[in-house]
Amino acid sequence: MNNYAKARAHTNIALVKYWGKRNSALKLPTTSSLSLTLDQFYTDTSVQFNETLTNDQVTFNERRLDEQSARRITDFLDLVRNQAGITTKAVVQTTNNVPTAAGLASSASGFAALAAAASKASGLRLNHRELSRLARRGSGSATRSIDGGFVEWHKGIGDRTSFATQVAPADYWDLNIIAILVNQQPKKMSSSEGMQLSQTTSPYYHEWEKLCQRDLKKLKIAIKNHNFNDLGTIAEENAMRMHALTLSATPDFCYFDADSLKAMRIVHQLRESGIPCYFTMDAGPNVKVLVEPEHRESVVSTLQTAFGPDNIIVAAPGPGVQYLT
Amino acid sequence: MNNYAKARAHTNIALVKYWGKRNSALKLPTTSSLSLTLDQFYTDTSVQFNETLTNDQVTFNERRLDEQSARRITDFLDLVRNQAGITTKAVVQTTNNVPTAAGLASSASGFAALAAAASKASGLRLNHRELSRLARRGSGSATRSIDGGFVEWHKGIGDRTSFATQVAPADYWDLNIIAILVNQQPKKMSSSEGMQLSQTTSPYYHEWEKLCQRDLKKLKIAIKNHNFNDLGTIAEENAMRMHALTLSATPDFCYFDADSLKAMRIVHQLRESGIPCYFTMDAGPNVKVLVEPEHRESVVSTLQTAFGPDNIIVAAPGPGVQYLT
Repeated sequence: MNNYAKARAHTNIALVKYWGKRNSALKLPTTSSLSLTLDQFYTDTSVQFNETLTNDQVTFNERRLDEQSARRITDFLDLVRNQAGITTKAVVQTTNNVPTAAGLASSASGFAALAAAASKASGLRLNHRELSRLARRGSGSATRSIDGGFVEWHKGIGDRTSFATQVAPADYWDLNIIAILVNQQPKKMSSSEGMQLSQTTSPYYHEWEKLCQRDLKKLKIAIKNHNFNDLGTIAEENAMRMHALTLSATPDFCYFDADSLKAMRIVHQLRESGIPCYFTMDAGPNVKVLVEPEHRESVVSTLQTAFGPDNIIVAAPGPGVQYLT
Repeated sequence: MNNYAKARAHTNIALVKYWGKRNSALKLPTTSSLSLTLDQFYTDTSVQFNETLTNDQVTFNERRLDEQSARRITDFLDLVRNQAGITTKAVVQTTNNVPTAAGLASSASGFAALAAAASKASGLRLNHRELSRLARRGSGSATRSIDGGFVEWHKGIGDRTSFATQVAPADYWDLNIIAILVNQQPKKMSSSEGMQLSQTTSPYYHEWEKLCQRDLKKLKIAIKNHNFNDLGTIAEENAMRMHALTLSATPDFCYFDADSLKAMRIVHQLRESGIPCYFTMDAGPNVKVLVEPEHRESVVSTLQTAFGPDNIIVAAPGPGVQYLT
């Protein structure tokens, strides 16, 4: 069946963050960013275009979404239809394997999977660059979930040049990313609002743009050299410098909660005790810990003791978009 | 008795922070700062120079300090002796009325009281500017505890021009500063180390220096106009932009703890509910809340409920150095 496709995309975690748009409609970022796609967290999405439908029908985790809730998805389908030159409505079925409590962007895997499935079902034949540009229109971080392993999202100079490319595949480096699931209250400040506020009000924002450029360069060298301490240091510093933008915004805000502080303290203590591990954080209280396999067990057991065994998920570099049909 | 003097100095809280030295020996700051002297927290210090002594004898809260612990005080006495042209040793007795748990710099009131008592006992007759320059050599923030009310510490261009002056006396503005006493662990990072790290490693430090200049200007206008919302906004923003320097340092560090986050959240919620109040924080987890008397009771009762009635101290603008003999 030509008008049907199903795809799986994995979420990713940025080591050099994306924190600001220079064009909201096109989701063009102020800086290039670099992420690692994660094997444990993914979204499966099928799209079936069907001439008999009068409206898009969207099911999310087996629950039918109303028009309002499905808006971001139907808007995205419009982009695909427009590009494919069709007007046919579709049935979209999405299953999310990204626990909300992990604080990982499910919109990254979600829009990457939707971009892959919808474009294929519509008859478009897009390569990874084109797919990443399309996914970008759904959610900025989705740009980086088309490819596996280490992925760079080039900020570009416009829509056509703002896409992602793979820096190194998932099997290039045996690393672990440990996600700590903490009880998450609904975010008071979405990442979209948060970056917008940081960008328009933090006096440090201009310096942030410059340092991301430097961090990206250094991170690519660290990846090339398999230098874990450099990779971890750059990632942790970059994350904290992003959070410094939230503190320094007007009004000031902070994504940390008590568990975040606890997790950061534990990582610092582990490092002082000679175990190389580093953390990163996004627009939420969750902390993710980077570690090499040789030290994984000691870090995992410390975190399990502190947060409970059920709240620790160990991930590794994951693959890019896969078609399931 | 000419070689004896006793003085009281109050601590102060910076509304535009001091966070970096351009000369460590002389304690010359990178930026000018502006503080409010607080009535509830003070240090009483007496100094008696006595020809028969072979060593300085220092008593702190009725406990005799050994040579090592008294070093910072005897070094300071050497400065005074040098200035007065004497070599006589002294008995120093200090009583501190600044609870450690308040997270208020007791070194500010401590060195201000010591500067006043020691200089007078030594026969020096210093005016407030000279006294503040002397106190500065003991502890940077002590510079601002010679005068009462709103006090500006001018960064100056050298030792002679880096002193404090009063912007407005204690009775100029009926304000309250509510200190929340939280269980404080010994600081992992002293303010001295913290500012040094921020200054040498945060990519945002240069911008910090510039913004302090702007904040100081705006704050003096807010004080002139009795504009509480401007004063509070400037103070809260300035504090958070200082803490952003700690997050963005290498290695990253953070003075917040779970109670700090809780207190900040409460202040934000109170403000959203229409009660004008703002927080500030220094090199520790403690949060101090600025409020006008008309809203004091509702803020105090909210904080008492959250942290326990015994942990809330309400202060007001306090006086400058007083001689008790």
